[in-house]
Amino acid sequence: MKTPVEVIEIKKRGGNIAQRDLKDFLAGYMQGSVADYQMSAFLMAACIRGLSEEEVVVITRCIKESGNCRPKENFGKPVVDKHSTGGVGDKPTIVLLPLLASMGVLVPTLAGRGLGHTGGTVDKLEALPGIKQQYHWNEAQKLLEKNGAAFLTQSDDIARLDKRLYALRDVTGTVDSIGLITSSILGKKLSEELDGLVLDVKYGSGAFMTTYEDAKSLAELLVKISTLMGTVAKVLLTDMNEPLGEWAGNGVEVMEAVRMLRGETVEPRFYEVTISLAEAMYQLAFPGDCKNVREKLVAKLQSGEAYEKFLAIITAQGVESETLGKLDGILAPPKLAGVLRADRTGYVSKVNAHALGTLLIKMGAGRKVLSDKIDHKPGLRFLKKRGDKVEKGEALLEAYASKELELPQISEIYTITDEEVKLPPYINRLEKS
Amino acid sequence: MKTPVEVIEIKKRGGNIAQRDLKDFLAGYMQGSVADYQMSAFLMAACIRGLSEEEVVVITRCIKESGNCRPKENFGKPVVDKHSTGGVGDKPTIVLLPLLASMGVLVPTLAGRGLGHTGGTVDKLEALPGIKQQYHWNEAQKLLEKNGAAFLTQSDDIARLDKRLYALRDVTGTVDSIGLITSSILGKKLSEELDGLVLDVKYGSGAFMTTYEDAKSLAELLVKISTLMGTVAKVLLTDMNEPLGEWAGNGVEVMEAVRMLRGETVEPRFYEVTISLAEAMYQLAFPGDCKNVREKLVAKLQSGEAYEKFLAIITAQGVESETLGKLDGILAPPKLAGVLRADRTGYVSKVNAHALGTLLIKMGAGRKVLSDKIDHKPGLRFLKKRGDKVEKGEALLEAYASKELELPQISEIYTITDEEVKLPPYINRLEKS
Repeated sequence: MKTPVEVIEIKKRGGNIAQRDLKDFLAGYMQGSVADYQMSAFLMAACIRGLSEEEVVVITRCIKESGNCRPKENFGKPVVDKHSTGGVGDKPTIVLLPLLASMGVLVPTLAGRGLGHTGGTVDKLEALPGIKQQYHWNEAQKLLEKNGAAFLTQSDDIARLDKRLYALRDVTGTVDSIGLITSSILGKKLSEELDGLVLDVKYGSGAFMTTYEDAKSLAELLVKISTLMGTVAKVLLTDMNEPLGEWAGNGVEVMEAVRMLRGETVEPRFYEVTISLAEAMYQLAFPGDCKNVREKLVAKLQSGEAYEKFLAIITAQGVESETLGKLDGILAPPKLAGVLRADRTGYVSKVNAHALGTLLIKMGAGRKVLSDKIDHKPGLRFLKKRGDKVEKGEALLEAYASKELELPQISEIYTITDEEVKLPPYINRLEKS
Repeated sequence: MKTPVEVIEIKKRGGNIAQRDLKDFLAGYMQGSVADYQMSAFLMAACIRGLSEEEVVVITRCIKESGNCRPKENFGKPVVDKHSTGGVGDKPTIVLLPLLASMGVLVPTLAGRGLGHTGGTVDKLEALPGIKQQYHWNEAQKLLEKNGAAFLTQSDDIARLDKRLYALRDVTGTVDSIGLITSSILGKKLSEELDGLVLDVKYGSGAFMTTYEDAKSLAELLVKISTLMGTVAKVLLTDMNEPLGEWAGNGVEVMEAVRMLRGETVEPRFYEVTISLAEAMYQLAFPGDCKNVREKLVAKLQSGEAYEKFLAIITAQGVESETLGKLDGILAPPKLAGVLRADRTGYVSKVNAHALGTLLIKMGAGRKVLSDKIDHKPGLRFLKKRGDKVEKGEALLEAYASKELELPQISEIYTITDEEVKLPPYINRLEKS
């Protein structure tokens, strides 16, 4: 058995650590025989030297097994989930759970909270009074048996190793390793004991990976490792160079998702990303049934079945039935507190999504550190999207907040050009996925 | 001002950290706002990415200034010291202090203890009953004023930052960075406020740097950084492919040094390394006086002046005057406990000095961890050195110990070949030094 220092030194020299030794090292960290300062030296070596696929599998498995996993009772259904790497206005999960559940898929989603410029599903849903998202697996299984889906959080007894590693990476400059990111994502998600996993890997100014190439490398590794762990994965690489949809915030995003669930018309790119993710999830759930998938999904939205499922899910999770009729009022934003207007006529060519995420933090809708409290009311509405023609003085963005608000300069957020803007595709697939 | 994470990330990407930021980072570590796990991530990045000369200067200066430095009162003398990177049988310091002091040089040596396979001057001198080596600088200055030299230890109030960094490097696999090694050596040594520093950088099976090339890189960096810090430095690169001299242990090494101080004939390579180091120290002390240096040094040994100085120094440091007449008995080894004999006739071509250092630990003369107690009596005597012709059955090594002792197999220590062995030079100089 290798000592912690020997394991660290192998990675320092760029070598590969044997499965057994890496497993012992990670177990030692959980048991206290490997110290934080030793783990951070290893993490730094891993960031600089990289991790082999075999090493990422070992770390992923150790993360998964360091906490409680969902019992393997699937109630006769295929089990599929979706994970997004995060962005601004990223709300498809709220639509996907009821929609896929209404198609006979079991969707036991462990969602996260927002941090920095990106939002989190758990925060958004807390705009619904009474909702409970923290359950032990045995209680969650009852919800899943009843409705086929549940909005769950990564509670303390899930993937304990990831919690400790993530906290350490955050303060030691060792976040940006695709091997460590992959093991963190999959170690948590695979504790749901999935048959299939759809990954929405985002790139652009509002994403963690700002370039397409970095996002693609991460996407490829996620698919590879998930497959090696026994869970089929599909990836969509989606554009996060501007917020997704018409709204960003918390309650306002739930409202936008609710509109899609009710079959109403919503912003087309949000619609398209959501339906594409739903198709991918369905195809993983029922690989033999690949005809007219989109039509079937759209039918569930238009018939109201998906929305009924949403109401059933949130009711089972603690939302009072009298609240259900008042959702529009509950989720509505506060007063209009500011408008950004075009300072010239032209075409919107660039949007600084990261700055919009930062503006949401300033408005109280996001958090800088995990202990910050969220205000579920405020929101941003995007009236113009990239590629749109705008007249000088026309409103591009509306900010809704109960407090006074100083908006950034238009030039910090929008770039407007004379030339017509031709947008690249905003949904991309890996060749092999 | 950069956050700790920002500083760590610059080094992770291979960039250079601005002086101010690195200084703040190191000060933060001493003050507690930078945690061990952050420092270890930085140290790992430094090991893999390397440190610029400017960065090494900043770390060296911070180490020096983190503890007490010698008051800059030199009693009208040039102040020169010598540092060895460590080996087996490495005893020149014991000769050099009184020898140079007898020539009018001030030598305020902060020496270390042995660790692993290498010995330390502080341990060796503790074979002298009553000796005290731990002094505050104000007391040490009195000793220096009186005798021109003092055998001192790196006490807790010297180079505090180095103590913490070294303890952390030891357990995080971040020892082998020439930048960190350089700052550790010089940060301590330069707290003596030296005019000149002679560095004995050792290479070979008994040294920390096993190859000549690695030792040369370290030597070059040591000279460069010392000069940038305002202290002229000279380097000798010396062979540590076998123990230095005839004896290794503690008391037995003091005895061998005493013999040289008395002008007696000693093993020629030990003699030559010691005289060469003494010449280099003298030249740094009196750069205008470069004629017949060796002759002057030899005269001090043969006249007994150097030995008288040694007796004066140790008496001032607590050794009773009645002990002085009994030194030979006090420093003599215990009974002969084992002999290694040649298993064939031929020439000694290789000696495993590291294994001999490990044997000394087994005999109680060395320590594995700093809390181990040292037995000052046991020792090894080397009857044959590399290049010597030996007959089958002839004694190569004698082990002296009060306890029963199992010696290693001859083949673990010695290689004997048919061909005559031509040794490469064992004292080398840097071109520019």
